[in-house]
Amino acid sequence: MIYLDNAATTVVAPEVREIIDKVMLEDFGNPSSLHNVGYDAEKYVKKTAQDIASILKVDEKEILFTSGGTESNNTALIGTAYANKRSGNRIITTSIEHPSVKAPLKFLEEQGFEVIYLPVDHDGLIKMDALKEAMNEDTILVSIMHVNNEIGSIQDIAAIGEFVKSINPNVVFHVDAIQSFGKLDIKPKKMNVDMMSVSGHKIHGPKGVGFLYIKKGCKVSPIIFGGGQQLGMRSGTENVPGIAGLGVAANLAYNDLEARAAHMTQLKDRLIDGLMTIDGVSVNSKKGSEGAPHIVSASFTNVGSEVLLHSLEDKEIYISAGSACSSNKPAISEVLKAIDIDRDLLKSTVRFSLCNDNTEEQIDQTIEALRSLVPILSKYVRR
Amino acid sequence: MIYLDNAATTVVAPEVREIIDKVMLEDFGNPSSLHNVGYDAEKYVKKTAQDIASILKVDEKEILFTSGGTESNNTALIGTAYANKRSGNRIITTSIEHPSVKAPLKFLEEQGFEVIYLPVDHDGLIKMDALKEAMNEDTILVSIMHVNNEIGSIQDIAAIGEFVKSINPNVVFHVDAIQSFGKLDIKPKKMNVDMMSVSGHKIHGPKGVGFLYIKKGCKVSPIIFGGGQQLGMRSGTENVPGIAGLGVAANLAYNDLEARAAHMTQLKDRLIDGLMTIDGVSVNSKKGSEGAPHIVSASFTNVGSEVLLHSLEDKEIYISAGSACSSNKPAISEVLKAIDIDRDLLKSTVRFSLCNDNTEEQIDQTIEALRSLVPILSKYVRR
Repeated sequence: MIYLDNAATTVVAPEVREIIDKVMLEDFGNPSSLHNVGYDAEKYVKKTAQDIASILKVDEKEILFTSGGTESNNTALIGTAYANKRSGNRIITTSIEHPSVKAPLKFLEEQGFEVIYLPVDHDGLIKMDALKEAMNEDTILVSIMHVNNEIGSIQDIAAIGEFVKSINPNVVFHVDAIQSFGKLDIKPKKMNVDMMSVSGHKIHGPKGVGFLYIKKGCKVSPIIFGGGQQLGMRSGTENVPGIAGLGVAANLAYNDLEARAAHMTQLKDRLIDGLMTIDGVSVNSKKGSEGAPHIVSASFTNVGSEVLLHSLEDKEIYISAGSACSSNKPAISEVLKAIDIDRDLLKSTVRFSLCNDNTEEQIDQTIEALRSLVPILSKYVRR
Repeated sequence: MIYLDNAATTVVAPEVREIIDKVMLEDFGNPSSLHNVGYDAEKYVKKTAQDIASILKVDEKEILFTSGGTESNNTALIGTAYANKRSGNRIITTSIEHPSVKAPLKFLEEQGFEVIYLPVDHDGLIKMDALKEAMNEDTILVSIMHVNNEIGSIQDIAAIGEFVKSINPNVVFHVDAIQSFGKLDIKPKKMNVDMMSVSGHKIHGPKGVGFLYIKKGCKVSPIIFGGGQQLGMRSGTENVPGIAGLGVAANLAYNDLEARAAHMTQLKDRLIDGLMTIDGVSVNSKKGSEGAPHIVSASFTNVGSEVLLHSLEDKEIYISAGSACSSNKPAISEVLKAIDIDRDLLKSTVRFSLCNDNTEEQIDQTIEALRSLVPILSKYVRR
């Protein structure tokens, strides 16, 4: 099997599995319990918070555990909007955000907030001028994704953060880092980031767990209420095995970040080079450090994306015909529309996404497979 | 170790661990992916929905997976209130609900909803007359817990459901079944229950997963927005290993429910009988089928609950000094106040909670330990 759908989800790393098993069977307590069984469980939660804080160079108290990236984004957006509605009602974002950002923002629009969607250029990047124009006195929140999940474009978060704060230091700057955490070096404080969303299962960690970095002093209302766990910011018994696994996964990703990113980037460049040798293929992602190390979007003239996906699947090569979250109900990608690719290619675009376990051989086999499939498939396209 | 804090959380069953491992390492796909790796993952989600639906005698499409009991309760309450606010703004509940019900209701009060808290009698049961009086034309939702987490009282859900529907069939009846699922036979449709919350980690399943039964046709707004998973009712990549584990745990609990409940009830009665032989002990829970099979609340005259907890901990016997969710920040139990126990006993009450793995020997050892500890500890009480 050649799994090139790592932006959808990743296999759990053996070290992550190991700690999850240990916590489930041995240290299974409820962190809120007053006795040692509870205390031993709580230590894992604290350890992961410390590990992540150390990676991000932030304080462990600034890490809020959630049930995943979607909840992290919902908490950041809805929580910030509700807590700051007296300061204004404008929220600024981009036109290429993930549905877990777009959908809560749509909900907030229904609640009376005004949301401005910044356009992006052909490379998937926002223009600072447009951001400047959008920022008015009513602006309370700017939410901009780091790495785009469909095309791998990287926004210049540090420059955006500096710019936002130069205009109004009270505006909250939120970053969806779900596709960048574990792939890029991220230092929220250096980048003027107030909140940052991360998911476990994109980095060989468990599904059902993620975190939200919340800078000390940021006003955020909880969106889930109950027993008051995590200082009241996110009630519910902590998913201790998941949190422990998340910590191990984060360490694995960052202990050796440079080598891993270099490996993935090399594979990405090899894949892009190979794709460019096939007739009718155009690539929507950037080589080298200009794009994320792990995401390649490519369009195949006259080949339907689902047909290509299933043809590769027959050869046990797994890719995506869009982002996983929406691919079960196929629709034209808003991201591809936003970067203004050729209309004819909208339904002919697929995503390859890598992880550190992928190999050169796998890339070469994939190119090989495409080279034989594409000429056949392009004859059968529905026009 | 004698773990008698199973109402706080339980150890994961070996069969549950096994399937979680399999899903994490082998069937790790994203259910939304269009290829087989995704499809194989989706099958686990479907299988668990079917298994739970079969236990409850409901339709599999009526099962919504969540990150746990707290999210289930939040979705049921906030989601119902928001979706039905045009029909009225009164919500009726009891004075002994879990914080994961009380806290979202408090949030809804801040949003302008009116919440009526029904009193309970000395046994922790609501009076039908009070419910009748509370139900007016503005009532949209009645939320009543099945088994109380601190004292194990069982509300007559079937009678309450019938009564609510007889007054107004449009009122939504929600039941927090987090402490009763896996311990009692529950058939929502027979009981006129429209929504029911369940948590995985109370039944030897994983932490970080639960479900909400939502009767077909019930109007509920989602509280977490994104990629539209689970028919848009709960976005976010499904926690597939957790959901698979939840299904196995539910089957384990219900394949042999009668024998397991009988075993726990027998242990409970043995514990209560033993407690009654110790001077100064009063029991706030019912023997036999009048109370939950697994929960015993007991008050120890002149013994502080935390002192008792830690003294038992020294003997590797683990109990709770209240419900786990609030025990990290000790406060007077609202449940104990609501059942009107002797004021002097409020800070002298602990909870023992059982599971099917507990044994008669463990109960006897616990009674033995208490018999030697209580006379010593009661001398040192702060008055």
